Amino acid sequence: MTTNTISVDLGDRGYDIIVGTNLLAKAGSHMAPLVKRQPAIIVTDETVAALHLATLRDSLSAVGMAAEIVVLKPGESTKEFSGLEFLSSAILDLAPERASTLIALGGGVVGDITGFAASVILRGIDFIQIPTTLLSQVDSSVGGKTGINTRHGKNLIGSFYQPRLVLADTGVLDTLPRRELLAGYAEVVKYGLLGYPDFFTWLEANGRAVLDGDADARRHAVITSCDAKAKIVAGDERELGQRALLNLGHTFAHTLEAETGFGSRLLHGEAVSIGMILAFDLSTSLGLCPAEDTARVKRHFAAVGLPMGLDAVAGQDWSSKTLINHMRLDKKVRDGRITFILARGIGDAFIANDVSLKDVEALLDNAIAA
Amino acid sequence: MTTNTISVDLGDRGYDIIVGTNLLAKAGSHMAPLVKRQPAIIVTDETVAALHLATLRDSLSAVGMAAEIVVLKPGESTKEFSGLEFLSSAILDLAPERASTLIALGGGVVGDITGFAASVILRGIDFIQIPTTLLSQVDSSVGGKTGINTRHGKNLIGSFYQPRLVLADTGVLDTLPRRELLAGYAEVVKYGLLGYPDFFTWLEANGRAVLDGDADARRHAVITSCDAKAKIVAGDERELGQRALLNLGHTFAHTLEAETGFGSRLLHGEAVSIGMILAFDLSTSLGLCPAEDTARVKRHFAAVGLPMGLDAVAGQDWSSKTLINHMRLDKKVRDGRITFILARGIGDAFIANDVSLKDVEALLDNAIAA
Repeated sequence: MTTNTISVDLGDRGYDIIVGTNLLAKAGSHMAPLVKRQPAIIVTDETVAALHLATLRDSLSAVGMAAEIVVLKPGESTKEFSGLEFLSSAILDLAPERASTLIALGGGVVGDITGFAASVILRGIDFIQIPTTLLSQVDSSVGGKTGINTRHGKNLIGSFYQPRLVLADTGVLDTLPRRELLAGYAEVVKYGLLGYPDFFTWLEANGRAVLDGDADARRHAVITSCDAKAKIVAGDERELGQRALLNLGHTFAHTLEAETGFGSRLLHGEAVSIGMILAFDLSTSLGLCPAEDTARVKRHFAAVGLPMGLDAVAGQDWSSKTLINHMRLDKKVRDGRITFILARGIGDAFIANDVSLKDVEALLDNAIAA
Repeated sequence: MTTNTISVDLGDRGYDIIVGTNLLAKAGSHMAPLVKRQPAIIVTDETVAALHLATLRDSLSAVGMAAEIVVLKPGESTKEFSGLEFLSSAILDLAPERASTLIALGGGVVGDITGFAASVILRGIDFIQIPTTLLSQVDSSVGGKTGINTRHGKNLIGSFYQPRLVLADTGVLDTLPRRELLAGYAEVVKYGLLGYPDFFTWLEANGRAVLDGDADARRHAVITSCDAKAKIVAGDERELGQRALLNLGHTFAHTLEAETGFGSRLLHGEAVSIGMILAFDLSTSLGLCPAEDTARVKRHFAAVGLPMGLDAVAGQDWSSKTLINHMRLDKKVRDGRITFILARGIGDAFIANDVSLKDVEALLDNAIAA
């Protein structure tokens, strides 16, 4: 078993990301030095509990660690005020103390809401991320962005709050449905597109292996992604600058998700996939990115089966005006102008504050008509 | 008009507390340099809006600053999950950006929930405190503790999040009902009891003047209290050590409030008043504090009319067992032992981690029988 450790360099808020296969079975020994008070409180959802909770509990028992369990309903609708109130109340029922630790076992929804709960319960207790989806392993479990959705949009309520440890067991990805794996892969390829052209080239050669279950390829993809994210987060924890590059495709993605109801009709990673294509199309249409780079991106997305167009959501009646109205509420709006992450080419994304809404609307009109 | 400025020394989270009479009418010019984006969003409650909103709005207009208004229902029941969701939603309806500023105009409830909302909306936007009660001017508006209550207890969900500015207009205290003034006075006298014996002596001579509306006495009391709190907070922002002294009387107070439903039957300051008497009684019964100091405290409380015993809540059927069960959920619990702030005398409080629950229960039994 190979285990890699990536350090997120944030001073007294710094922590390790440990990546490996069969990690869940040894989670107890990795966590024991960090859990200051027992019982630890595991937060998971029904789906993940059925697959992985027994393994995690056994690993805790093996090191003599006691744990309580809170099980949430699976799905994005858990990540709302009602879900936060339910989770907070369930945790307070367990009489936590400031030295208590939450353990988030699950995908992005479980990680985001558990991290948020940890940041506000008793004004802040510790939490550990054990992400069980590709998307949460390479993106949402790292960097301390927590949050819930409201009817106004995604993650509009939340906090910057770092975990004490991230354990990414790439072995658990074997239980992941293909669709979710692919949605997570969109965030993997994002790192290549935003700043790591060699990684994109590697993915062109090995993306199928990552998706088809090759253990070494998966581990390399997760390590490279976490390493990229850790560097960016360490340089800009609160997204005052370069961290915004991680939002490549996300301004589009959030508006698509808002319009489709944040549900299973369009997964977050699928929305990001379509959003990155829109971002490259916009970059090329503005004369900023060579057409051949955008074509190359599209070839890879098509080769692995990533969704690329708005028609990926069956039966959705899109309107560019409605989509742009959703964007106005995005956290990346400043002085009424919408910030986009655009690209000068593969591996060369940048923050553009001066994109005109007319250009975006025209692009969306084209995408809707396609 | 005399204006005093106290700096809270917290580096890039530092801010000023400005204390004076007639400050509200000049609030706009004090805030203008700090409000990065207009409109600012004023959060207040119906009671305060009727008394002071027009003055605040006029002061904003005078410097050309635009503002939106969100009005909450008055009372502690606003400070719950449902209130947070209502407030967050009302603010998101106004399409805030990360550079937006909330202005909390009101007492502790408005300040606590607005500060909490500011800390989580878009993962953190600016806020300014304009406390309109004596209690919020000398305590809750300073130091960055925000939060809401749940059925488990007070302020169990919240954040440490500092305001950008606190404007304490001691003139607005003229509109405060006597009962609320007295409740706030409990937090004023707390500073004397925990570490400023000379201030306690001053209050013995001038407490009535503070309560009866003497403008100079009020300003001196608020300035001295804010100065004491600013020093303690600057030394221990996240309550890892000496900040806990500010909880003198509060472990008792929170359990009394939980039992009376956090409502108007027992105001927070009234509960703190009773809690401080219990803390001095406990200190004396444990042989830690001279009986004459506790007697002197009681003489002053009686002289100004502060509530001192559990019989201050008419018709309440107290049980020491129930009160102790509430305490177990307090944030100040560690390893199952309850931390109390005790006193070696007037102006000499300390943190005691080793008080036995039996002693506390015996004390409560006595207080209930009295």
